Amino acid sequence: MSLAVSIDDIRAARGRIGEALNVTPLLSSPGLDAMAGRRVLVKAECLQVTGSFKARGGWSAVSKLAAEGVRGVIAFSSGNHAQGVAHAARAHGLAATIVMPADAPAAKVAGTEALGADVVTYDRAGESREEIGARLAEERGLTLVRPYDEPLVIAGQGTAGLELAAQAAAKGVSQAEVIVPCGGGGLAAGMALALEAEAPGLRLRTAEPQEFDDMARSLAAGERLRNARLSGSICDAIITPEPGELTFPVLSALAGPGLVVTEDEALRAMGAAFRHLRIVVEPGGAVALAAALFHREEIPGETVIAVASGGNVDPAMFARAMELAPLA
Amino acid sequence: MSLAVSIDDIRAARGRIGEALNVTPLLSSPGLDAMAGRRVLVKAECLQVTGSFKARGGWSAVSKLAAEGVRGVIAFSSGNHAQGVAHAARAHGLAATIVMPADAPAAKVAGTEALGADVVTYDRAGESREEIGARLAEERGLTLVRPYDEPLVIAGQGTAGLELAAQAAAKGVSQAEVIVPCGGGGLAAGMALALEAEAPGLRLRTAEPQEFDDMARSLAAGERLRNARLSGSICDAIITPEPGELTFPVLSALAGPGLVVTEDEALRAMGAAFRHLRIVVEPGGAVALAAALFHREEIPGETVIAVASGGNVDPAMFARAMELAPLA
Repeated sequence: MSLAVSIDDIRAARGRIGEALNVTPLLSSPGLDAMAGRRVLVKAECLQVTGSFKARGGWSAVSKLAAEGVRGVIAFSSGNHAQGVAHAARAHGLAATIVMPADAPAAKVAGTEALGADVVTYDRAGESREEIGARLAEERGLTLVRPYDEPLVIAGQGTAGLELAAQAAAKGVSQAEVIVPCGGGGLAAGMALALEAEAPGLRLRTAEPQEFDDMARSLAAGERLRNARLSGSICDAIITPEPGELTFPVLSALAGPGLVVTEDEALRAMGAAFRHLRIVVEPGGAVALAAALFHREEIPGETVIAVASGGNVDPAMFARAMELAPLA
Repeated sequence: MSLAVSIDDIRAARGRIGEALNVTPLLSSPGLDAMAGRRVLVKAECLQVTGSFKARGGWSAVSKLAAEGVRGVIAFSSGNHAQGVAHAARAHGLAATIVMPADAPAAKVAGTEALGADVVTYDRAGESREEIGARLAEERGLTLVRPYDEPLVIAGQGTAGLELAAQAAAKGVSQAEVIVPCGGGGLAAGMALALEAEAPGLRLRTAEPQEFDDMARSLAAGERLRNARLSGSICDAIITPEPGELTFPVLSALAGPGLVVTEDEALRAMGAAFRHLRIVVEPGGAVALAAALFHREEIPGETVIAVASGGNVDPAMFARAMELAPLA
């Protein structure tokens, strides 16, 4: 089977990114290990520039489009892809228009505007962001940067997998499951491809919140299935209608069964990350750590690796998570 | 003049630490740069194992003492040195007793106990932790690990400077001031020695809270001066009676004038770090970033480097900081 993205595409994306973004650390803590009953390593993508891994895909796509001479870019996003694209566009001197749901966290809207983008909002339940994006792209002469069904974006997210492969090897970890928060599947697919090439003993697993577990159900069924709802979750960053057309074949081929956690587990994982790792993780970014901490029986191995994919969260939500934090 | 610690001592400490601790990242963010009006790089020591740079000095000292066959170790600390020593002692199979002030943050006391240490509390205003530590050391046959006036500890803290020298060079920064939170001066002295050897264009500056600015006043006077008070600051991690006997000569020789910030500025820096870096910093750990953000006219250069030295903070204090966080 031919997949949409190759390891060479991912390595090329790393070359384009160069020193423009952060190499995010692979963190650990005795307290987290004690909670999980085994060694837990956390790839802290919340420490990426703009607060999520989306800066990787944004830079990968925008840097290529800028070299091709496009006039400007447009993206639809609940906020993290928005900031990733806006950041890369500003750095490359391109205009950026971002279509965001009206219920996106205030910090994400403000963060996107602070990066110089023109933000257009829509109703998540009643309107199609894809249609709005396509219309504005045509009206304004902008090039659409899809959040996950875009080979350049998947390749950019895959650079997190290249980093992880090297970091895990440095810590002596060659066999482990790698849990990744999953919306459309761009990060998971990109990382799965990178790990297959550079750390074949690290198997990827997706993590999603209950009621928005389209990837887990789709992987089990062998075909793409939709979510019943498209709003109403605190995990705004990873709520998508269905698995991506390009990402699903990758994850079908390379990922293990999908993991599903509750919103309460995601908040408790945020609290544990506050206490034990001193990082700020948003609800959608915490579902993989939640699986590692609270779904132990579904994950084999002496070591588990979880990706904390984003940290753009409003203070009130973070305060809820801190209330659930362990004292030690 | 002969100083108590050499660059060879620091390199030896790095060798003993090996892969046992984290290499902490040097982070940046467009939002933070916009706040500061120039490039800000943050060495995130709050992401170190046990939540502060103190794990470095603890490991450096305890690993050497363990090899020499000591029976156990004792330390006095408001909580970060406590956890650093307790972590290293457990890893080396040594008993640890920690003398902590009764008003230490709950998270620090609990974190120290969770690492297997025996915690003994004292009254910060009325009792001398040095005397209590010396007495317990004799009674229990334990070896005292001083928090900063100990060459092995200073050498361990200096490993943060070795990392920073390499990380700054990788980002093309060869000239900058490096602002470091300062209590007794162990981190500042260790880093100053490491930077002098490996990145001589990076000049160290200490940062302290108002009313507890013994190092700034001492550097200005050319002799060690005491603080009028020893309690009553939210910056518990960096409240010490006076500059260290071993650290002061190092900083007199190598550091620029000391910087002094208000508690409100420290809280605002914590809020900015929450919003823009997605890291959890405690008040005492945030004074250097506070200086970088709010004392711009006292710090020359196109780039400023701030060390965020610790992140062990209770939820209520962190909530206060989040209220002061910028929206973007």
